[in-house]
Amino acid sequence: VKLRDLAARLDCDLAGDGDLEIERVRSLEDAGPGDLTFLTNPRYAAQLGETKASAIILPSDAPAVPLASLRSRNPYLTFARALGVFHRPRLPTPGIHATAVVAPTASIGEGASIGPYVVVGDDVAIGPRATIFPHAVIYPGARIGADFVAHAGVVVREDIVIGDRVLLHAGVVLGADGFGFVPLPDAPFKIPQTGTVVIEDDVEIGANTTIDRATLGATIVRRGAKLDNLVMVGHNCEIGEASFLAAQAGLAGSTKLGRNVMMGGQAGAAGHLTIGDRAQIVAQSGVPSSVAAGAIVGGYPALDVTRWRRISAALLRLPELLRRVRRLERTVGIAPPTRADGRDEPPKR
Amino acid sequence: VKLRDLAARLDCDLAGDGDLEIERVRSLEDAGPGDLTFLTNPRYAAQLGETKASAIILPSDAPAVPLASLRSRNPYLTFARALGVFHRPRLPTPGIHATAVVAPTASIGEGASIGPYVVVGDDVAIGPRATIFPHAVIYPGARIGADFVAHAGVVVREDIVIGDRVLLHAGVVLGADGFGFVPLPDAPFKIPQTGTVVIEDDVEIGANTTIDRATLGATIVRRGAKLDNLVMVGHNCEIGEASFLAAQAGLAGSTKLGRNVMMGGQAGAAGHLTIGDRAQIVAQSGVPSSVAAGAIVGGYPALDVTRWRRISAALLRLPELLRRVRRLERTVGIAPPTRADGRDEPPKR
Amino acid sequence: VKLRDLAARLDCDLAGDGDLEIERVRSLEDAGPGDLTFLTNPRYAAQLGETKASAIILPSDAPAVPLASLRSRNPYLTFARALGVFHRPRLPTPGIHATAVVAPTASIGEGASIGPYVVVGDDVAIGPRATIFPHAVIYPGARIGADFVAHAGVVVREDIVIGDRVLLHAGVVLGADGFGFVPLPDAPFKIPQTGTVVIEDDVEIGANTTIDRATLGATIVRRGAKLDNLVMVGHNCEIGEASFLAAQAGLAGSTKLGRNVMMGGQAGAAGHLTIGDRAQIVAQSGVPSSVAAGAIVGGYPALDVTRWRRISAALLRLPELLRRVRRLERTVGIAPPTRADGRDEPPKR
Repeated sequence: VKLRDLAARLDCDLAGDGDLEIERVRSLEDAGPGDLTFLTNPRYAAQLGETKASAIILPSDAPAVPLASLRSRNPYLTFARALGVFHRPRLPTPGIHATAVVAPTASIGEGASIGPYVVVGDDVAIGPRATIFPHAVIYPGARIGADFVAHAGVVVREDIVIGDRVLLHAGVVLGADGFGFVPLPDAPFKIPQTGTVVIEDDVEIGANTTIDRATLGATIVRRGAKLDNLVMVGHNCEIGEASFLAAQAGLAGSTKLGRNVMMGGQAGAAGHLTIGDRAQIVAQSGVPSSVAAGAIVGGYPALDVTRWRRISAALLRLPELLRRVRRLERTVGIAPPTRADGRDEPPKR
Repeated sequence: VKLRDLAARLDCDLAGDGDLEIERVRSLEDAGPGDLTFLTNPRYAAQLGETKASAIILPSDAPAVPLASLRSRNPYLTFARALGVFHRPRLPTPGIHATAVVAPTASIGEGASIGPYVVVGDDVAIGPRATIFPHAVIYPGARIGADFVAHAGVVVREDIVIGDRVLLHAGVVLGADGFGFVPLPDAPFKIPQTGTVVIEDDVEIGANTTIDRATLGATIVRRGAKLDNLVMVGHNCEIGEASFLAAQAGLAGSTKLGRNVMMGGQAGAAGHLTIGDRAQIVAQSGVPSSVAAGAIVGGYPALDVTRWRRISAALLRLPELLRRVRRLERTVGIAPPTRADGRDEPPKR
Repeated sequence: VKLRDLAARLDCDLAGDGDLEIERVRSLEDAGPGDLTFLTNPRYAAQLGETKASAIILPSDAPAVPLASLRSRNPYLTFARALGVFHRPRLPTPGIHATAVVAPTASIGEGASIGPYVVVGDDVAIGPRATIFPHAVIYPGARIGADFVAHAGVVVREDIVIGDRVLLHAGVVLGADGFGFVPLPDAPFKIPQTGTVVIEDDVEIGANTTIDRATLGATIVRRGAKLDNLVMVGHNCEIGEASFLAAQAGLAGSTKLGRNVMMGGQAGAAGHLTIGDRAQIVAQSGVPSSVAAGAIVGGYPALDVTRWRRISAALLRLPELLRRVRRLERTVGIAPPTRADGRDEPPKR
């Protein structure tokens, strides 16, 4: 692709030789002649002088550089789109593989690619242009929109509802029973999980992530939400539009996330909470109570992130503080505390 | 179902019109005419006046309400049983699907439903009325009791022993090798994992949870224990009767849990510990040492939960405390601490 | 096996009757006549007088014991090797199962065992002596070395590169898309994940662990690294030689681990960090910034482990410290702090 044509296709301003032939996108470190590269992190600006790349994606207002450049108001988006220009994904074979077991009462839209050993149950409806990789299992009654992609080993349980352009990575399980038991002393009594899961349009769900069905009603993942790998969404949760859950994050039952919420990796939220729009939850923090819209929380238990950082910094001085208080006590003639003074029982474990 | 008959079937006292026809169970918020609803959380009592439900499940001693009610000493259990009355689960096709690969030396009890592409290895014994969904794989030598349910993609490794009425959700892996290596500097030496896993009766295991086989002997999950999704149980662990492990909890090797232990989501316990009967481990806490029977622990590292809460509350005042100590030092004429005073080295990372 | 022959085979010194017949290895607690046992933890030395085992593995310099013993400079390694002597693993049937779907353009080396319903895509190359259990799926273009073992349900995505003697436990997913989006407010824009995953020789990966493909270039797991179950490795990470990641550990994108790094269970590291050779990360800690070679870090946020332990100990005295400071203030005539003094806003959630 000529750099001039690439600039047009990516809505960028061109600075430099538009006749350059670009063959692919590579990182600043690896790029050579014929490569388009990018600078997302200003830390690496020093490497610009040494790159052998033919061209680079830069912010519109970046200073002049010694190689051709594509100038963009959103260089990160331009980088993502450029990757798409050069990426040639391996497309699965079209058609329904001879070994796929599709129930006679199931309907599959036009243009589908249904791989070997896929199982599609009774009364399932799948929209046009589905790509279902080997060994995915769609239980009876699931209703799925257009342009569905399910990788190998995906399990969609009975009666789940899925919108358009949903992408499920390998090993995703949608609609396993919620974790609900009446805790009788000898034998916990299982609460039938009679609800469903609703996945709206444009949702992507990472490998081996699990989303449980609701006890009653539906567990919902709203339009454009993105879940990373090994995430757990409990029964009756709701994840708002365009929210992000990083890997290994977990939500206990009935917690509702608003729009554009960001939840970091390994973070967890207790059940029955409300996490407001645009709230951010720092990685690995534990959220015990509801979070206001726009708030940023961190820590365990989680609190306002600025406050948490101040406390974390103060913690580093705690051993010193103990010594300073002892010195003060000596100075004013107070005896050191005895265990009886402490009144804190020793840890019980 | 007439409300009168439902009351009899659920062992409840009836208050109001026994001739009402009940069609299903719905939440207080969603319920309309023909619906039975419930009040598990007194917070929602205010909504009682507005509900359009025909009837409600209430505690025996609850005040009178403006709609018909079923009075129960355990309303949560009654709610669970009522769900079962109206739930019509989709039953899989009975029989052994033509595509299932069942070894000639395997035995499968009467009344089984073995789905497409299920693989059952040599010398496997499965009791009556098993329901095995597509793509589950039972390795050679596994012995499994009656009324077994394994969802799609379950993997039961060789020689695993499973009791009656065990329910495995999609993606469960039983009996992968324990994580055991002799840490030689260049090439860790793998310790053969020659033991097994024993799952007793009435155990339920959530989606994508993994339970490793023992190095020697058995990793054991005792009768009535319930494990949520994405839980990790290390080799040679033991989980006591009717214990609960919430999602993403993890146990390092050889840790033993007693009866009725409750472990919260994302909580972890180190290896070789003993967690006593009825102990509770707060979500996301990290347990470094054994826990006494009946104790409740939280925090990282975990300690008595009351003490942990008191410390967490005190932590919020730590920045203030630093200022108060500085003020005291000024008042009594002590110089502020220098780095040398501190004696704490800077963080090494 | 005669004890004398076992001693020779395991490179041990023999103390006691070399004619004893050893039938298996069992724990000190379970061992009886004909059993070889071991003492890895000196805590259990008291049980030595009661064991019914025929022989025991001991350190070279251990005192004399009342039963026969194998003396070793590395008794833990000897124990592991002894397990291997007596372990008779069930071997899968050799050959390619009739139901395996192997693309005509794929090549599979000699001596392979390819189980039922395995799917191997176009242009895949697999080395000699592969053992692929039922339902594993190898996407097109993957290149895999010798002595490969993949358990049931493993998914290897397109173009992944795998070395020799790699062992993948059930449910492993290699090469799902990295979690990369340009966060536009309404609809996050997916960044094509055009890179790959490289797994070097002698790597073992635990059940349901996921390793994402790189955005550009490769996510790399180097020679001899061992990953436990349910681990998450983000796109563009690198795991150094002979490093260990315990269960449920997680790495955000682009973090590089050196050689012989040990990461405890449920620990997490932020993205774009460097974790030096031989560094150790305590279980469940959260690493926010790079870690020097040889450092041991713990806590959330993680810091030098000695410092973290000192702070954790001091924390137990924090409620007492608050009382002591109040007493000091009374003694020198300072008023108690008011909220205004505190200057700390209340937690915002």
